[in-house]
Amino acid sequence: MEMQRRLRNLAHPLMLGAAFAASATPATTQSEQRVRSPDGRNEVTVESRDGGLYYSVRRDGQAVLLPSRLGFLFRADSLHNGLRITSVTRDSADQTWTQPWGEVASVRDHYNELRVQVAEDRAPGRRFAVAFRVFDDGVGFRYELAESAGFADFEMMEELTEFALADNARAWWIPANKPEPDRQEILYSSGPVSRLDTVHTPLTLQMSNGTQVVIHEANLVDYAGMYLVNLGGRTLRSTLARWADGVAVRGRAPFVTPWRTIQLADRPEDLAPSTLTLKLNPPSRIENTSWIDPMKYVGIWWSLHIGTETWGSGPKHGATTANTKRYIDFAAANGFGGVLVEGWNLGWDIDWFNTGKANFSFTRAYPDFDLPEVARYAKQKGVTLIGHHETATMIDNYERQLEPAMELYRRHGVRAVKTGYVGDLTEHGHAHQSQFMVRHHRRVIETAARNGIMINVHEPIKDTGERRTWPNILSREGARGQEFNAWGGEGGNPPEHETILFFTRMLAGPMDFTPGIFDLLIERPTGTPRQPHEARPRTTLAKQLALYVVLYSPLQMAADLPENYAGQPAFQFIRDVGVDWDTTRVLEGKIGDYVVVARKQRDTNDWFIGAITDEEARSFEVPLSFLTAGQRYVAEIYADGPGAHWRDNPLPVVISSHPVDSTTRLPIELAPGGGQAIRIRPER
Amino acid sequence: MEMQRRLRNLAHPLMLGAAFAASATPATTQSEQRVRSPDGRNEVTVESRDGGLYYSVRRDGQAVLLPSRLGFLFRADSLHNGLRITSVTRDSADQTWTQPWGEVASVRDHYNELRVQVAEDRAPGRRFAVAFRVFDDGVGFRYELAESAGFADFEMMEELTEFALADNARAWWIPANKPEPDRQEILYSSGPVSRLDTVHTPLTLQMSNGTQVVIHEANLVDYAGMYLVNLGGRTLRSTLARWADGVAVRGRAPFVTPWRTIQLADRPEDLAPSTLTLKLNPPSRIENTSWIDPMKYVGIWWSLHIGTETWGSGPKHGATTANTKRYIDFAAANGFGGVLVEGWNLGWDIDWFNTGKANFSFTRAYPDFDLPEVARYAKQKGVTLIGHHETATMIDNYERQLEPAMELYRRHGVRAVKTGYVGDLTEHGHAHQSQFMVRHHRRVIETAARNGIMINVHEPIKDTGERRTWPNILSREGARGQEFNAWGGEGGNPPEHETILFFTRMLAGPMDFTPGIFDLLIERPTGTPRQPHEARPRTTLAKQLALYVVLYSPLQMAADLPENYAGQPAFQFIRDVGVDWDTTRVLEGKIGDYVVVARKQRDTNDWFIGAITDEEARSFEVPLSFLTAGQRYVAEIYADGPGAHWRDNPLPVVISSHPVDSTTRLPIELAPGGGQAIRIRPER
Repeated sequence: MEMQRRLRNLAHPLMLGAAFAASATPATTQSEQRVRSPDGRNEVTVESRDGGLYYSVRRDGQAVLLPSRLGFLFRADSLHNGLRITSVTRDSADQTWTQPWGEVASVRDHYNELRVQVAEDRAPGRRFAVAFRVFDDGVGFRYELAESAGFADFEMMEELTEFALADNARAWWIPANKPEPDRQEILYSSGPVSRLDTVHTPLTLQMSNGTQVVIHEANLVDYAGMYLVNLGGRTLRSTLARWADGVAVRGRAPFVTPWRTIQLADRPEDLAPSTLTLKLNPPSRIENTSWIDPMKYVGIWWSLHIGTETWGSGPKHGATTANTKRYIDFAAANGFGGVLVEGWNLGWDIDWFNTGKANFSFTRAYPDFDLPEVARYAKQKGVTLIGHHETATMIDNYERQLEPAMELYRRHGVRAVKTGYVGDLTEHGHAHQSQFMVRHHRRVIETAARNGIMINVHEPIKDTGERRTWPNILSREGARGQEFNAWGGEGGNPPEHETILFFTRMLAGPMDFTPGIFDLLIERPTGTPRQPHEARPRTTLAKQLALYVVLYSPLQMAADLPENYAGQPAFQFIRDVGVDWDTTRVLEGKIGDYVVVARKQRDTNDWFIGAITDEEARSFEVPLSFLTAGQRYVAEIYADGPGAHWRDNPLPVVISSHPVDSTTRLPIELAPGGGQAIRIRPER
Repeated sequence: MEMQRRLRNLAHPLMLGAAFAASATPATTQSEQRVRSPDGRNEVTVESRDGGLYYSVRRDGQAVLLPSRLGFLFRADSLHNGLRITSVTRDSADQTWTQPWGEVASVRDHYNELRVQVAEDRAPGRRFAVAFRVFDDGVGFRYELAESAGFADFEMMEELTEFALADNARAWWIPANKPEPDRQEILYSSGPVSRLDTVHTPLTLQMSNGTQVVIHEANLVDYAGMYLVNLGGRTLRSTLARWADGVAVRGRAPFVTPWRTIQLADRPEDLAPSTLTLKLNPPSRIENTSWIDPMKYVGIWWSLHIGTETWGSGPKHGATTANTKRYIDFAAANGFGGVLVEGWNLGWDIDWFNTGKANFSFTRAYPDFDLPEVARYAKQKGVTLIGHHETATMIDNYERQLEPAMELYRRHGVRAVKTGYVGDLTEHGHAHQSQFMVRHHRRVIETAARNGIMINVHEPIKDTGERRTWPNILSREGARGQEFNAWGGEGGNPPEHETILFFTRMLAGPMDFTPGIFDLLIERPTGTPRQPHEARPRTTLAKQLALYVVLYSPLQMAADLPENYAGQPAFQFIRDVGVDWDTTRVLEGKIGDYVVVARKQRDTNDWFIGAITDEEARSFEVPLSFLTAGQRYVAEIYADGPGAHWRDNPLPVVISSHPVDSTTRLPIELAPGGGQAIRIRPER
């Protein structure tokens, strides 16, 4: 990592603020402080007014956030009134580093910073700072609570950070604090921000002037996850996930909060890939990352969801030694790096899902699963097992076993573990995204790192850029993935679903969506009696391929049963497609309608294009100007075949090869619910 | 009205039901009853199961509504269990009548009916029937509560009618039972039905198989307005507006409820014009309808909303004798039928909006408004005054004055009155769409009819087809109209707004949206301090013209100030456009995206086309095959001019004339937020 940080700390006593005010609009006061992004387009203003502390955000001179109040509610009192700015500090930086894996290899962290020192005019006279970093792609800010005579240990009930949108922007949202409070496995709705209730982040908003706004957070380490609640009108405010006793955050000053992030772009296509949260996380704590290894994988998983095999013991038990070896053979034969095994460990035979009484062992296998033998076989075949820890949110049970469980896997050469947190609250009643759980997830990541193990979390806390600091947290769920198409839950995922995910959930970080279902015609028997015909993916087969490029994950599953890939020429794309990218370019995109994205594989000259649409057929013509000029390439195209339609004819795929170069304009035709997947490789 | 009703009442004892079951699926029971639409596509099944009464709806054999429970909750007990079908009656009808005015002249009422007699097996042994009418365009059903020894006077707390959607359809919705409970002046959101809370009707839903479903009600006469509440999953249930004491409906058996309607169509374009509710209302109670007169109007209104004139007295008082005469002159000069005068009566000088203490007089004018003189002048000019009654939901105050107020207007030749109900609850706490208010609105309509007065209700109860029975209720509001663009409330109406209205609110009936604002560039000063720049229509000028065709109302306002039409060639379209239609054809439509609609003016051979789009530019090619073959026409086209854009260049309009005939394919280009308005008249 090359660090080219240029520091210039300039401490201003408040009266120096006037020097800045001189260049500002007449409405400014001496207490108003401004800071702009390096390109000058984004500007944050901070001011104290009538004892309240406010920030606002403008882009190109147009308001994005109107004056929005800052503060906290503690158990004892609030830190919200009688505030004045005592001094400000300015800073800037420009550094570029290489992520060990990602949507892009190189990330430039270029910002101007304004740190505002604030004092409380009344007892207990607390002090804190708010640090604003303004980037070309958005804004991050966080609070830094200082220790003082009257303030050390605290119990925070709420963070009172407002986001007063300047426009009744259109929001794409999923509800929070509803029956499924924190797992985020919910279909998106859209509507004016004035009609939101409580929602999850990332929250993607489109202003009527075309500006795209994404509110999220970064570096959630020892704090509660933030939701956004509508205060009426178009002002959103943070509201925090809670411990069982209702407290949001327990801490001791000095204390820094996570960063609140406001990503800004001119078009939806410019939102991805999003690196704002990475820039607001500390550099990697793992020095040697060579063991961290993006890969494709298969596993004993889809069979469990469609009911042909079981997690628990019995005649249909999936995780047997023989069956796992079959998957290992399949992985090795097709160049996949890993084999996931769910249901290998004791605890699956009780109805933990409905009773909430899970008691999993993370070290003891079912008798028909010989871990040492399977691990030996995998190693011999050049494949890693991907272990599995379903906690059912019984966190004590998991943490008691965490060290030996990771150690067991390490001893057997298991290089990755999928964890699971099916459940709304922990066994002690802490919320899914509470500070308690945030701490727990960090503990798991760090324990895994010490054991050389990569992590893939399902039903996770949201991604706030932890992968920069701990690059062994490779992927996670945190949205409705393919599994909902196995159950038909809430009607399965509609054709538009992934075109929304790309501009919402995916802006937080990688998602283990598990694409690649080829057996699209069979309606599964596992739907509820009332919805028997919905347990199926609502895409064409070509769209299943395109999802490998569109929905980024350094762990990409070929989720279908190995036998369903047999004799399928389209499977070649899954064999070929990359999982680690040098460059990403969004060529076309409209939230909820379509996405066309091109990504260059790291360490090769191959490009991959994924194009997906909602229920409407669409046509695009894509200039391949991103290719190296003068180089001749071959485009291997997997397109929706004649008459393809997600509803009743999802299987037709036409595979063709064409010579292309940087001057080519490639036509792309998508069927209703369809997609197209393209590999572009240099001509051999 | 020609009545060609063919009645065939066939009373079946229950055992005869088996004759129908014979042709049904094996899952049927003897108590299962089926009825199909005349075209055979829509089918309702009714059955009792475990003491519950259920209905379900299929279209082309595919489930639309799964078995959905029926019943009531009374104050004393529920009528929900221990129910069995005792007999059924079948009926059918095919009648066609001419509406005195409307989106279409001729309405065909063609249905098959199944009346299911139901008995309660336990005390008090009540009896009721449910009548299902199945049309080619949907289903209506209502309850008929029979009087019995144990049941006469009742207080109903809730109607327990379910709508168990077979698919997690996408819904376009506005919330009910929220801060603005019943006025429906809310921007639409969309999302899966599983994520609804409580919403208004009409509720428009799109199933994943393409079927369009609209849930609403018809013939709301002496009952409470129905909202829909999500019971979890995708089952909606009726929930009723309430009296102040929490009761929903007070009645005495025998008693019939309003019809619950489920409109069905294959495409959004086939939803409009919707006549289902008309078919489920009784024929006209007004024998001679010659005095009911669709018209265009102007009035003292927009000036009040943008703040250049006032409702109350003072130097800017709008409703003066002189000013009204100026509007009368303008109306007469341009062929408009009416002049609305708001703020003519005493009561506007107190802050009734914020205090909730209104005390309007509906007979006493401000001293500077000489009603007899103004009325005389209007009559002389061939124009009618449109009176104004803002009640502020002080219903007692209005009802006390209702007869003399209508009589006063009648005496002075005022042929139409705009009423207003700004307020959430009545002065006694009854909900806006409560049975109390439903009764009140009927009383106003009937009183007006006796005085030969047409009614245009703002902040109304929803439209359930009353215009068939009382064709003097011409139009109403009941959605976010143009006025929100004067205030900037909730950010004004976004460009997509009217493309949603067409497929939602407008399916209930005419809306007095008040289009025709030409002064689109000026940002009004009346926004709140936080949103100063939003008080403007977010459309091009051509789209303002197109709204006259798209948003149907038999009373269409030219809403801008007369001086803003001066020297505007585009004003000619407003002079020309019809307000009463023989035929309506939706040529293109996607909810929230665009609408292209053609309407043939009644009693002429002129056609008008209105095309509108959301924030995206769009192109269409429209075949004019609806024109009379062999006839030569001229198309007068008002199109978005070069560079037109709702955001920063809304004014350019290009007006052109072209010869067309029934073989012409007319290209239509719409700017972002734009529209196109076309008059097609026979060549002279």
